[in-house]
Amino acid sequence: MAESKYTIGLDYGTNSVRALIVDVATGAELSSFVWNYEHGEAGILLDKNDPELARQHPADYVKGIEVSILGAIQAAREKKGFDCKNVIGIGVDTTGSTPMPIDENGIALGMKPEFATDLGAMAWLWKDHTGYAEAEQFTQAAEKQRPQYLAKCGGRYSSEWFWSKILRCARAYPKAFDAAYTWVEIADWIPAVLAGTTHPSKLKRGICAAGHKAFYHTSWGGYADAEFVGSLDPKLKRVRASLPDKVYNVSEAAGTLTKEWADKLGLLEGIAIAIGAFDAHLGAVGSGIGDGTFVKIIGTSTCDIMVSSMKNKLADIPGLCGIVPESVLPGYYGLEAGQSAVGDIFNWFVNVVQPGGEKKLGHEQLTKEAETMKAGQSGLLTLDWHNGNRTILVDQRLTGLTLGMNLHTTPAQMYRSLIEATAYGARVIIERFEKYGVAVKRVVNCGGIAARNPLAMQIYADVFNRPVMITPTLQTCALGSAIAAAVVAGEDNGGYASFDEAVPKMAGATGKTYTPIAANVAVYEKLFGLYKKLHDSFGVAGHKQDISGVMKDLLNIRDAAR
Amino acid sequence: MAESKYTIGLDYGTNSVRALIVDVATGAELSSFVWNYEHGEAGILLDKNDPELARQHPADYVKGIEVSILGAIQAAREKKGFDCKNVIGIGVDTTGSTPMPIDENGIALGMKPEFATDLGAMAWLWKDHTGYAEAEQFTQAAEKQRPQYLAKCGGRYSSEWFWSKILRCARAYPKAFDAAYTWVEIADWIPAVLAGTTHPSKLKRGICAAGHKAFYHTSWGGYADAEFVGSLDPKLKRVRASLPDKVYNVSEAAGTLTKEWADKLGLLEGIAIAIGAFDAHLGAVGSGIGDGTFVKIIGTSTCDIMVSSMKNKLADIPGLCGIVPESVLPGYYGLEAGQSAVGDIFNWFVNVVQPGGEKKLGHEQLTKEAETMKAGQSGLLTLDWHNGNRTILVDQRLTGLTLGMNLHTTPAQMYRSLIEATAYGARVIIERFEKYGVAVKRVVNCGGIAARNPLAMQIYADVFNRPVMITPTLQTCALGSAIAAAVVAGEDNGGYASFDEAVPKMAGATGKTYTPIAANVAVYEKLFGLYKKLHDSFGVAGHKQDISGVMKDLLNIRDAAR
Repeated sequence: MAESKYTIGLDYGTNSVRALIVDVATGAELSSFVWNYEHGEAGILLDKNDPELARQHPADYVKGIEVSILGAIQAAREKKGFDCKNVIGIGVDTTGSTPMPIDENGIALGMKPEFATDLGAMAWLWKDHTGYAEAEQFTQAAEKQRPQYLAKCGGRYSSEWFWSKILRCARAYPKAFDAAYTWVEIADWIPAVLAGTTHPSKLKRGICAAGHKAFYHTSWGGYADAEFVGSLDPKLKRVRASLPDKVYNVSEAAGTLTKEWADKLGLLEGIAIAIGAFDAHLGAVGSGIGDGTFVKIIGTSTCDIMVSSMKNKLADIPGLCGIVPESVLPGYYGLEAGQSAVGDIFNWFVNVVQPGGEKKLGHEQLTKEAETMKAGQSGLLTLDWHNGNRTILVDQRLTGLTLGMNLHTTPAQMYRSLIEATAYGARVIIERFEKYGVAVKRVVNCGGIAARNPLAMQIYADVFNRPVMITPTLQTCALGSAIAAAVVAGEDNGGYASFDEAVPKMAGATGKTYTPIAANVAVYEKLFGLYKKLHDSFGVAGHKQDISGVMKDLLNIRDAAR
Repeated sequence: MAESKYTIGLDYGTNSVRALIVDVATGAELSSFVWNYEHGEAGILLDKNDPELARQHPADYVKGIEVSILGAIQAAREKKGFDCKNVIGIGVDTTGSTPMPIDENGIALGMKPEFATDLGAMAWLWKDHTGYAEAEQFTQAAEKQRPQYLAKCGGRYSSEWFWSKILRCARAYPKAFDAAYTWVEIADWIPAVLAGTTHPSKLKRGICAAGHKAFYHTSWGGYADAEFVGSLDPKLKRVRASLPDKVYNVSEAAGTLTKEWADKLGLLEGIAIAIGAFDAHLGAVGSGIGDGTFVKIIGTSTCDIMVSSMKNKLADIPGLCGIVPESVLPGYYGLEAGQSAVGDIFNWFVNVVQPGGEKKLGHEQLTKEAETMKAGQSGLLTLDWHNGNRTILVDQRLTGLTLGMNLHTTPAQMYRSLIEATAYGARVIIERFEKYGVAVKRVVNCGGIAARNPLAMQIYADVFNRPVMITPTLQTCALGSAIAAAVVAGEDNGGYASFDEAVPKMAGATGKTYTPIAANVAVYEKLFGLYKKLHDSFGVAGHKQDISGVMKDLLNIRDAAR
């Protein structure tokens, strides 16, 4: 019997990085290790005068490679049969769009002494919204000059994305902007660090970040053109000139592991390093994505991923974060959507509002009480926009709303209403896919909330009126990275020839499934109709609708639920 | 020097009754005593399966007379110069509309053994909303058959009012309904108890309750006619037949104190008992009401009162609770408006939501933190409809709404937003008066919140863009009752010939005044515009408006406030 082969998936999250060692034959997890970033507050550099700001220090990314992989290897060594020489590749997924300025040698500006305290020189974390005005300008400029750009990214350009952040930097941090040779997504930079290819002349960028966040499409010859970005600010022409014509999908290698890193990590020099991608995209791979599968990765926010075979023509879908050829799997369009906050909303209620006085109602107690309620019984309705709306409205300047409160409304009722709101927001996304011809045959939820909150998942099944499957592992993103590493390593080295072969083997297990309960479905059908009314009234400019019945309809539903 | 004369004001609140002994010459308070009702929860009979239900036991009203007056007399005796023989009259104010079924002898059904546990036989407290469907039916029937009825009570009939509750009783409690000879407001019944005139043939009813809550108007010959009420339910014809043609204003006597009560209380037999009125109406008298003065009595809810000389013609004002000749002062139209919840909303947040975890944020801490914020800084906007909207929408089936929440929104920001919402709701009422030709020259706020919450009162002044005067006493309702008693006792007995003479003497003192701060006024002008958008969108059937900018306008105001 041949020795088992392994790959390592590195998953760079918002607050920490995880290394996961996976058995290539089965996808079984051998070991993992998590390291919390050490800069800022829980790994995020904040500005107390500006709640829109969220940055990260690049040193955390580099140190994270070493600490997390060595930690995982140490844990793996305790298992029989593991040997570092059988690790055949490394894959990387990260948050995004998290672009970072680098100099002409590929050095992150934030790691240079002269920029040690310059927030503009750091990585601009996905949830940094300081560029909201710039996003609006990109949207307006593209509407006039390049409507085809918007058609591929949902009709609006977001403050969370590449160009909004770069333009914001040009305006707010001129020193950092001028010192930057180019900007790179950390999903591209971290694999390049492992492969020793951070120099701009060697750096290979992935289609995932480029296509979903930076207006890249082969039909117009790559990234947004210089004339267009220059119309927003002439300085952007220089940034555009620094970007390559060609980008790569995750079946290709960013390079191979350098001797320096191999020595440091105890791995073989020259093993494959996969092109990086966003956590959600590789998370979808780790969740077993394929035609008709809607993968929802639920954490502080969500990313929702589908793929659609490139053999069939696909219409542009307004409001999606992107439709990008091969951004998830080779041979398929990758379709990305998402909700700007899910777990973050529940955490806000528990940690900031802190309801329940001395009883200190946490998630567990609130969930327990909320479980005793019937659908519709609270009379409450919430819009889940506490961190804006990513899909389908693509508008970070929307905010949370709850209505239906009376003098008896309890914290647990409010908590349940927040959960329900995120389910309605998720359904809006599913309906958007289906409306534009992407049939949803199977819903797979993964992430911490999917695993730990059965109440939320039952509500999701009831609101969707579809079965909801939960992935058997919590580490779908890191597993997806490990799968990419196995494909890039190739069949000859003990990996796979393609994702079509690798995914069923490494991500084929099935987990718990929640089935819709008919009585709840009927009530949520009505409540979703009311949610949609508010959604359109507050979210769609120019939309005029009679919403005077919403509060009364809720009371009628409440009274019927008693 | 002649001995001082005194009157007693009895103020029946939601949870307790207060007796106040007042010096007739100056309005100075000699003593007072409060007794908490002993039935139900804090004096209210509740049904845990129906949050709309709120009843009271009539025995509390009768026991309350004795305990409160004896308590006040005992306290007064400790002051030099007080003698019970110098008490020249008693006035009574109560909550309302709080109707109660009585039998053919004037006995409250709730006090008869066979109805001891029948919630339908008790007093139907003002905030009982079980008759919301019946209220809607009265509104619809009146729209078709008797539009003139609605014109005098703001265009909609409320679930809090007389006929809604009686019709609800007919349907839900047939035994109690059938046993009732007639229905009487407790504002009329309690003075009749003191005067020994509860027998239907002797009972004198006040114009205040009849005109504001029971469709009474001399122009159509008294109460709502039998044909009309019979069209809703033929059984109501019998109730209508039990009601008198003539009702009285507060300058007239309900009767004189019986020997039995005189002995029990240690007062002189035969002293004047004034016709009763609602607490807010007599509270307005105790606040020094007159032409152009807007009196706002702020407690758990508010009542807002103005008067307008009957020498001038007055248009019907849609949305007001009523325009009733002489319901407040003889010679003036009495105009009543109100907010269904103010203090109740703040109490809900502190006592039910209980924000702040272990810190147990109470009103004091939340206010302290809210005081450090600038107008508009929170980005929040609230509709103050947690207990429905009494004026100008007259709709108990509206509910609370807060929008603008993000992941950093704090309890103190939410608390301040609740305060601001009640100020906007108050401004809507002021604007309604002025739009229909009743000029507001002076705003006088009274009640517990006016006295104790300087932050709220400053916000009110800023939102109104008018000075806000606070009454020097907390006991304006009881003082108003004592003034009515002094007028009814008459000049010959040491009282006054009229309210025009009595009010300036007994309620002439002035209290603290809050002056608008220009910078805040400018911000609140914008915020009120947004409030009004939501108010109309959710509150006015058929109203269609583009509200998609509301969340963004709030963020712009927030960002400018930084």
